[in-house]
Amino acid sequence: MTRLSFKISATDGAARTGAIAMHRGEIRIPAFMPVGTAATVKAMRPQEVRASGADIILGNTYHLMLRPGAERIAKLGGLHKFMGWEWPILTDSGGYQVMSLSELTKVTEEGVSFASHLDGSRHMLSPERSIEVQRLLDSDIVMQFDELVPTTSTPQAQRAAMERSIRWAKRSRDEFDRGCEHAERSAIFGIQQGALNEKLRRASAEALIDIGFDGYAVGGLAVGEGQEAMLGCLDFAVAMLPADRPRYLMGVGKPDDIVEAVIRGIDMFDCVLPTRSGRTGQAFTSDGPMNLRNARFADDPEPIEPECPCPACTQHSRAYVHHLVKSGEILGAMLMTQHNLWFYQRMMEDLRDAVARQRLAGFASEFLARYRARS
Amino acid sequence: MTRLSFKISATDGAARTGAIAMHRGEIRIPAFMPVGTAATVKAMRPQEVRASGADIILGNTYHLMLRPGAERIAKLGGLHKFMGWEWPILTDSGGYQVMSLSELTKVTEEGVSFASHLDGSRHMLSPERSIEVQRLLDSDIVMQFDELVPTTSTPQAQRAAMERSIRWAKRSRDEFDRGCEHAERSAIFGIQQGALNEKLRRASAEALIDIGFDGYAVGGLAVGEGQEAMLGCLDFAVAMLPADRPRYLMGVGKPDDIVEAVIRGIDMFDCVLPTRSGRTGQAFTSDGPMNLRNARFADDPEPIEPECPCPACTQHSRAYVHHLVKSGEILGAMLMTQHNLWFYQRMMEDLRDAVARQRLAGFASEFLARYRARS
Repeated sequence: MTRLSFKISATDGAARTGAIAMHRGEIRIPAFMPVGTAATVKAMRPQEVRASGADIILGNTYHLMLRPGAERIAKLGGLHKFMGWEWPILTDSGGYQVMSLSELTKVTEEGVSFASHLDGSRHMLSPERSIEVQRLLDSDIVMQFDELVPTTSTPQAQRAAMERSIRWAKRSRDEFDRGCEHAERSAIFGIQQGALNEKLRRASAEALIDIGFDGYAVGGLAVGEGQEAMLGCLDFAVAMLPADRPRYLMGVGKPDDIVEAVIRGIDMFDCVLPTRSGRTGQAFTSDGPMNLRNARFADDPEPIEPECPCPACTQHSRAYVHHLVKSGEILGAMLMTQHNLWFYQRMMEDLRDAVARQRLAGFASEFLARYRARS
Repeated sequence: MTRLSFKISATDGAARTGAIAMHRGEIRIPAFMPVGTAATVKAMRPQEVRASGADIILGNTYHLMLRPGAERIAKLGGLHKFMGWEWPILTDSGGYQVMSLSELTKVTEEGVSFASHLDGSRHMLSPERSIEVQRLLDSDIVMQFDELVPTTSTPQAQRAAMERSIRWAKRSRDEFDRGCEHAERSAIFGIQQGALNEKLRRASAEALIDIGFDGYAVGGLAVGEGQEAMLGCLDFAVAMLPADRPRYLMGVGKPDDIVEAVIRGIDMFDCVLPTRSGRTGQAFTSDGPMNLRNARFADDPEPIEPECPCPACTQHSRAYVHHLVKSGEILGAMLMTQHNLWFYQRMMEDLRDAVARQRLAGFASEFLARYRARS
């Protein structure tokens, strides 16, 4: 059934390291996936994303179906060829963006009808259409279409959304399997829902396992509930997912979120933070976030992070990056994004290494103490 | 006196090819200098500018003195180190920008007093201060401070500005020579003024030669007078400048302007067109300008210019670049700028080659016929 081979080479507590092998390449886990929203990881050339250490990137179904259009990308040879990224791509289902970005949204059992945030044109996303779009993109890891409700909604609403997500999971799986040729070379992940509620999370996980997926995501977190609540949920939610399949925490997160989630058994992450923060002048460093717009960097000849091997740090000073960021120069966004993606990938490499050496607890406590000291 | 060695290896009519040797590297002529306004060639990493074939870039005295400040750049080791460009840099004098960008400008014999367009702070640019700023930047080729008036101003105003520019040329040269250590490793160019008037151009050239410079620029053109008037002026103005010194046509220009000016004996060019157009979606090609925003490119799998060896053309389609440009993606500006700089440098290489083979007339007529056919 599965088109991915998942090998765990070492574990340390709940944490795992190893690799997912797919036809377009290997994904070392724990893995961080830079977000390539509109067929570009913003301000980065594809080969620069690769050089940062990324094995896989994420593409957004919602954005791509609206512009330039999934059928157009398919006609041009698929998303990989279109954007010049030959390695694995995971696509989300569009479920999250359609609720947060589009307008005049109407949710029924069939799916979500909405107006494009770009031009107001009306579209429909259903489990079948979401999978079809992801197939047109030639996604390597397809996500089921799900329904999200805020973690603050009523228990009834949370249960209803979780149950609908299960029905949509089945329809997603069925539609995925109908795309025989694409299903041969790709994988589909189910998404556990249930907000912060342990019973709902368990019911969701059991139903997904019944359907059967190549990997499992924890959905509906990192939506404003706070780190403590999120980690509390992971404490029980992750173990409900099969240990022999990749586990993906969607939309997470800050560096300390990622370290804490790896400890709890998560294998895959995606987040816009390193790229988006890069464009606003915030650098991630081992000593916490650093705002390069700050005037104290105007005369600072040091690199953003002295020990960092990324091209931005080996070639440029904080003073220069400060100048670029303050002047609104594109190169500022390019250098900051590059540093941040390297920082995230180095952190993942360190996490993989720590798990392999069974010293994750020591690594994590040192990393978190240093990272949080100035945050 | 001169810190540059200028070797002409071949001529073809008035056109020349060869090289300017300076301590930071060799400048093959005819040369195109990408504009690095605020210590960055916009949307390009320094090594990407170099890879496009650029031997030298231009820095703007006006912009850099206001932000981040010349004294700051000097303290940080100079402009080359600050921006990560180790090859030659020519800096303009600030004279043009101060008249076109700043506010509350007051011109006296002493210099130009003005308010910064960034924060309204008051500054003074005089021949002495302009040269001092260029020295602080550690410029390789320093431009004299001059006064510009529109080509449409009265003959009296044109003569007065030309004569003042000569007095400022002398003060610039004297100030340059006072910076002994910097003068040892750099060069200073005079700027011929006189609008479109042959007598004024001659008087200006003779006075500049009397003072003595390492190279000579033709100033005050490409300011709205039209290509025909500009070329008509070059027809008499260039020959007034010493044949054994580099000749630089400031702020020019479109590809066909450059070809026509090389025919008339110009060796050096700078222009924001390839970079600025790149950011607005206009590509330069051998078949004329091409607007990638045009909907006809939405499904076009061809590269911007099929025969172009630049990374944007070897890796990406018009359809992708169209999508990026329409979506306002930074990568769109990066790829378009890169293509345009490669196009300009390939054109310069072709011009050098044509002069060396004594077939400039044939090359130019083919190039111009093809370039203008669709323009």
